[in-house]
Amino acid sequence: MDAGLIGLGQMGSGIAKSLLRGGHRLAVYNRTAERAEALRSEGARVVSSIAEACRSGVVLSMLADDAAVEHVVYGEKGVLASLPAGGLHISVSTISVALSDRLAADHARAGQAYVAAPVFGRPEPAASAGLIVVAAGAARSMERAKPLLAAMGPKLVVFGEKPSLANVVKLAGNFLLSSVIESLAETYAFARKCGVDAAVLHDFFTGTIFTAPVYKLYGGLIVEDRHEPAGFAAKLGCKDVRLVLQAAESAAVPMPIASVVHGRFVTAIARGNADKDWSVLGRVAAEDAGLTPAK
Amino acid sequence: MDAGLIGLGQMGSGIAKSLLRGGHRLAVYNRTAERAEALRSEGARVVSSIAEACRSGVVLSMLADDAAVEHVVYGEKGVLASLPAGGLHISVSTISVALSDRLAADHARAGQAYVAAPVFGRPEPAASAGLIVVAAGAARSMERAKPLLAAMGPKLVVFGEKPSLANVVKLAGNFLLSSVIESLAETYAFARKCGVDAAVLHDFFTGTIFTAPVYKLYGGLIVEDRHEPAGFAAKLGCKDVRLVLQAAESAAVPMPIASVVHGRFVTAIARGNADKDWSVLGRVAAEDAGLTPAK
Amino acid sequence: MDAGLIGLGQMGSGIAKSLLRGGHRLAVYNRTAERAEALRSEGARVVSSIAEACRSGVVLSMLADDAAVEHVVYGEKGVLASLPAGGLHISVSTISVALSDRLAADHARAGQAYVAAPVFGRPEPAASAGLIVVAAGAARSMERAKPLLAAMGPKLVVFGEKPSLANVVKLAGNFLLSSVIESLAETYAFARKCGVDAAVLHDFFTGTIFTAPVYKLYGGLIVEDRHEPAGFAAKLGCKDVRLVLQAAESAAVPMPIASVVHGRFVTAIARGNADKDWSVLGRVAAEDAGLTPAK
Amino acid sequence: MDAGLIGLGQMGSGIAKSLLRGGHRLAVYNRTAERAEALRSEGARVVSSIAEACRSGVVLSMLADDAAVEHVVYGEKGVLASLPAGGLHISVSTISVALSDRLAADHARAGQAYVAAPVFGRPEPAASAGLIVVAAGAARSMERAKPLLAAMGPKLVVFGEKPSLANVVKLAGNFLLSSVIESLAETYAFARKCGVDAAVLHDFFTGTIFTAPVYKLYGGLIVEDRHEPAGFAAKLGCKDVRLVLQAAESAAVPMPIASVVHGRFVTAIARGNADKDWSVLGRVAAEDAGLTPAK
Repeated sequence: MDAGLIGLGQMGSGIAKSLLRGGHRLAVYNRTAERAEALRSEGARVVSSIAEACRSGVVLSMLADDAAVEHVVYGEKGVLASLPAGGLHISVSTISVALSDRLAADHARAGQAYVAAPVFGRPEPAASAGLIVVAAGAARSMERAKPLLAAMGPKLVVFGEKPSLANVVKLAGNFLLSSVIESLAETYAFARKCGVDAAVLHDFFTGTIFTAPVYKLYGGLIVEDRHEPAGFAAKLGCKDVRLVLQAAESAAVPMPIASVVHGRFVTAIARGNADKDWSVLGRVAAEDAGLTPAK
Repeated sequence: MDAGLIGLGQMGSGIAKSLLRGGHRLAVYNRTAERAEALRSEGARVVSSIAEACRSGVVLSMLADDAAVEHVVYGEKGVLASLPAGGLHISVSTISVALSDRLAADHARAGQAYVAAPVFGRPEPAASAGLIVVAAGAARSMERAKPLLAAMGPKLVVFGEKPSLANVVKLAGNFLLSSVIESLAETYAFARKCGVDAAVLHDFFTGTIFTAPVYKLYGGLIVEDRHEPAGFAAKLGCKDVRLVLQAAESAAVPMPIASVVHGRFVTAIARGNADKDWSVLGRVAAEDAGLTPAK
Repeated sequence: MDAGLIGLGQMGSGIAKSLLRGGHRLAVYNRTAERAEALRSEGARVVSSIAEACRSGVVLSMLADDAAVEHVVYGEKGVLASLPAGGLHISVSTISVALSDRLAADHARAGQAYVAAPVFGRPEPAASAGLIVVAAGAARSMERAKPLLAAMGPKLVVFGEKPSLANVVKLAGNFLLSSVIESLAETYAFARKCGVDAAVLHDFFTGTIFTAPVYKLYGGLIVEDRHEPAGFAAKLGCKDVRLVLQAAESAAVPMPIASVVHGRFVTAIARGNADKDWSVLGRVAAEDAGLTPAK
Repeated sequence: MDAGLIGLGQMGSGIAKSLLRGGHRLAVYNRTAERAEALRSEGARVVSSIAEACRSGVVLSMLADDAAVEHVVYGEKGVLASLPAGGLHISVSTISVALSDRLAADHARAGQAYVAAPVFGRPEPAASAGLIVVAAGAARSMERAKPLLAAMGPKLVVFGEKPSLANVVKLAGNFLLSSVIESLAETYAFARKCGVDAAVLHDFFTGTIFTAPVYKLYGGLIVEDRHEPAGFAAKLGCKDVRLVLQAAESAAVPMPIASVVHGRFVTAIARGNADKDWSVLGRVAAEDAGLTPAK
């Protein structure tokens, strides 16, 4: 398939590789051009405007946050203005439910199709067709998007015809992950201060009751107090839980644990950890318990 | 081995069966005698006093809470008074860290050994040698206890020589479980109210990121809004999180998620759910979001 | 002074009256015209566009939320486009710190002055020159604004030259008020369920330790379970605490009580109380405790 | 009246002075005798046992916590054993609702009367007949207690015939006070970090909306970051909020703000502030926001 891809951060660059290796022809665009150049050897066609990226009629965007997506879509010569009638925009970014709803409405008004397809996974699986894709959109648009989504990873789950449902699922998943991190942070601080060897406890829990890989990953990072380099930064975790709380407020759903976790991220950031991995909540909990760093 | 067992609730009766099938000779005692009678056919010797249960010099206790343990140990003709010098008390109950410390001190003063060995698992694994045992106590006492603990389940982890460390681990585990339940409760209420099919979401999460059996179990109960019969009652969950918070206060460890979860259990109880499974937090979250029951 | 006033809700209409009675000449504008007509007898000149309201070079705006202010200021023929160079915009609305900063920057760019002057008080004091005004802005602009602000109430406090400081103070005050309501809600639910007569308790507290009028007002509404008509609606309280949390996140300040109070407002709204007085948190707390309504 | 008084800490010594100046004859007892000696010059009769303090048939106790009261009442030759039939025990200490209920039952069983009469106020008003007394107990016992309670302060409020109702009110009041402190702590940290002058803000709030003396007192201590000497120690605040949460759990009342405030006290203690004034929550909030101390 011919498609464009806008946004070549760590995740976007990885996705570009997976798409190219999947046999698709890709016009890639990034605000700063170097990142695009690096993909030329992988077979990407580097373009210098959003409009060119939209020319094939199918464009994916993978950007940092709502503001970046708004800029790319609604800005002058942006996606909305550049995509031909009948064109398809696949939004892979983790954005707010409200913005996804707005994109759906505005693309429809412009005679364009829109699919939300946020992903779970870190940069490595992004580059090796290993992402989990959650998608939603009109059935016909989804059919068009599928070859591209299939190239991103082995697991694609479709949640319905309203695009923002996929954003709800993505945000819900990130909230669950953050609640795992904070509850491990509290548990290990508690156990350590009571005299339990946190490494033994971690092996015990992850070998018996809490066998999911996320417990192994984040519990391990907390026990080792190792939060750099960031797989996913605390400031992004903070943002995603804020987006959960905003969507939950709009839907009138109280989420007391989400409120707590959000506050813990804010504390982490106030203490200078914005760019550390979101597992740094483990350090915040240890500090609040008056513990010295784990190692 | 010859041993006594005090407390024949669902868990205690199950453990008695596992011990008997493991080849141990058991004198069983329960405040109300019928429960003991049921074990006669399994080979148990039914005794009518705590003192007789202590006669062999090794006694296990499996009781509901601190008050029950205090009564059995410190009461007239209780364990402390009845166990011979050099005798061993293995406390399997989920009790407070403070009481475990007090038992350790008082048994030592009386020339008796004390091992804390709380367990993870529901009544069925209790009866089929399938429990996970976390234990702590002096190395020599632990050696004596091991044949009995080994008969309770395939997994025994020792956390040190201070008995209450095992209680810390048990309470920490129950807190982690309760935080899984509450975070799933919030997530599924949020997703449902946004229009996501909770059953599809549950299959997706437990098939990809949250593969631990506890997510499958509790997420499933929440999606089906099925909280009876209780595998573990909400009032017991509430009690255990309270014990965590008490131990955490003593150790000066703030645990904001534990505080939230405790409050949710109190709400569940105020709404008449004390005896339902602790997965009933899912119903509380749904109600607070203005949702009708899941099914 | 000659000035315009945009926004004639309950608060805006009251302020209009106070300004007119204070001797100012006022051009009033409202999206729906009837509300403006009602002020004609008070001496207001009714105009039919934002541009006319801006003509005198000084315009006040008193609107419901960020979206309304954005529309009025940034919309076609809005305040930004209509106010002459050197003109002054006095924003009386309770808006976000971020929007206030943006207004400051954009008015400066347009060669216009901007003062933020949110108010504390309900509709009656608004109409009788009884508001408390918190203001911030450049000293010279503040001098121009003062005759108008003085006509709104006897108490004017200036917090500095950066306009959004006044919005911080306004939001901080509303957060403090909401925390009074929620803590009274919990206290009275607790006391009632323990068997204490809440009315006696209320008289005791407000007669001794908690003598501030806000305790009398909100405690009384909670004891009587009387939340209609709304002096200030729960949905507005929810919005303001959200604005506090957003500004606090931007400034990296965790506010755990604000997080809790926000969640309580969301619960109140999910239960159908969006338009009731924000004292309805008292009913939410009583319901969560399994109490029947107070009366 | 002839009476005994057990417990001569800062508060107990102050009360002793007020009672003596009120014309009562007092036998005073303290575990460590020096504190009692200091009262001899005020006219107190110093006794060396609980039994002697109980001899007149009326005894007041003013002790630090549940454990101290349990020791004094239930210990060998304690109040329960020493007070003659028909005697009256007036418990002035801030204790748990559960212990107060237990004292009521046990005194009744022993044919003794029991009145709970906890007080609001610091050491100075204790010594100058300036306390606020909240009391509950059987009408006949209350009549006997009144001359003594009247000597303690000008304000006595009776909450019913069940003694623990007075303990509920005392704990409820301390919770409300602690929620004032924490909400001021968050508010001032937020405002300061946004650039608002906290001292100006404090003058504004306490001069307009939050006029209660407690806002002036605690807001002032927070603005000045002055938490020594402690009028009421953080560890005692922590204990009292814990007692509130325990009583609330027993009554099945969720109190989310109380849960938060409890956690903040635990954090304060973990950071070494156990003996500072409970206003030290202001420092905790400032630290969590990454602010340097206020002054």
